[in-house]
Amino acid sequence: MTARVLLYDLVGTQDRRFSPNCWKTRMALAHKGLEHETRATRFTEIAAICGGGQRSVPVIEHGTEVVRDSWQIAEYLENTFPDTPSLFGPDPGHQFAYFFERWSVSLYLDVMQLIVKDIYDHVTPEDHDHFRSTRERILGETLEDSHALQQRRLQPMRDALKPARQVLQRQSFLAGDAPSYPDYQLFAILQWVRVMSPLPLVEQDDPIRAHMERCLDLFDGLARQTPAFDW
Amino acid sequence: MTARVLLYDLVGTQDRRFSPNCWKTRMALAHKGLEHETRATRFTEIAAICGGGQRSVPVIEHGTEVVRDSWQIAEYLENTFPDTPSLFGPDPGHQFAYFFERWSVSLYLDVMQLIVKDIYDHVTPEDHDHFRSTRERILGETLEDSHALQQRRLQPMRDALKPARQVLQRQSFLAGDAPSYPDYQLFAILQWVRVMSPLPLVEQDDPIRAHMERCLDLFDGLARQTPAFDW
Repeated sequence: MTARVLLYDLVGTQDRRFSPNCWKTRMALAHKGLEHETRATRFTEIAAICGGGQRSVPVIEHGTEVVRDSWQIAEYLENTFPDTPSLFGPDPGHQFAYFFERWSVSLYLDVMQLIVKDIYDHVTPEDHDHFRSTRERILGETLEDSHALQQRRLQPMRDALKPARQVLQRQSFLAGDAPSYPDYQLFAILQWVRVMSPLPLVEQDDPIRAHMERCLDLFDGLARQTPAFDW
Repeated sequence: MTARVLLYDLVGTQDRRFSPNCWKTRMALAHKGLEHETRATRFTEIAAICGGGQRSVPVIEHGTEVVRDSWQIAEYLENTFPDTPSLFGPDPGHQFAYFFERWSVSLYLDVMQLIVKDIYDHVTPEDHDHFRSTRERILGETLEDSHALQQRRLQPMRDALKPARQVLQRQSFLAGDAPSYPDYQLFAILQWVRVMSPLPLVEQDDPIRAHMERCLDLFDGLARQTPAFDW
């Protein structure tokens, strides 16, 4: 199973790679040192990839395998490449990464609400109609109404990150001195916002900000290379 | 260090032991199979225990050591009794238990708001004035105003438990097949409500409810023995 991994990766204008779930997969592939390429994919192109039937990215192709969903992909990579650095560490690392997954994903709707108009402004024109109609249905409000409430909703979002903040006041990464999958789960939220919005999700002196910088430094600055805002 | 551990344990009417943080310590002591006794302590008695200077329980005395704060106590027990069953499992278990601690404690204010009048009704008369004045200051509303909003605030609280619910849909305990400290951190919230309020914090078919029952069964039904409501 040494075939190169192909990752379908969500793309906006100026080759912005912004999907938090795709970033989890990119960081996981880099963590394991696996050769891979990314294929820039618009929202409206997803239905046609891998012969059809896909509704979201990330999706990876590896040899004859097609795996979708960032968590499924992380487990697939961990099981398929046991001789590469572990994403989870020994048990209970895997179980807690799953809890952390569910916790971090529980924040996505609130983050999306905060920056949905900014995202709209940086997806490609081909994706505009699709993005507006699906997101306005999910949020139950127009992109413009969401944007008008951005500042008011920022502090509750920052408050929701408190448990991670408290851990990162004590240590560099969520599981200690070295990065593991939960770090990429948290970082993915920050990277999503950073790539698509001028709104600083966290304050300059927030330990989560310092953690984001540490993650941006990993793997020769992999995650710094995509166009992003300078908070 | 084989001295018996003494735990100062918050008490209400009818010997109700209701403090979530004390329950974490009780379950941790039982998990490690350590001989201990609990000393029933009212809010207004805390200032006088251990020679003074304490502001909250749990506090444990172990030989000449006095340790306060449930997380500090868990770490103390883990370090002091390395030959007893581990509370955290191998790393990154310890780190993730700390994240889980911060996540679960971040819910306490909302839970307290939900049941604060019920708690008031079941603390001893000696504690009534202290409890009302401190809690009304913390919550910024009267106990009666909190109570009036109980039903409206219940669903958001249930929603906040979603990450734990999703993990427990897959497995019996948070770290897999056997209980560890994060289970006691979650259980402590349920036990707090169950002991002091007729309000079912979770629905009958919620995986968190089944997890609570599993925790109540542990250690010969230790946590079932305190008076509680029958949701």
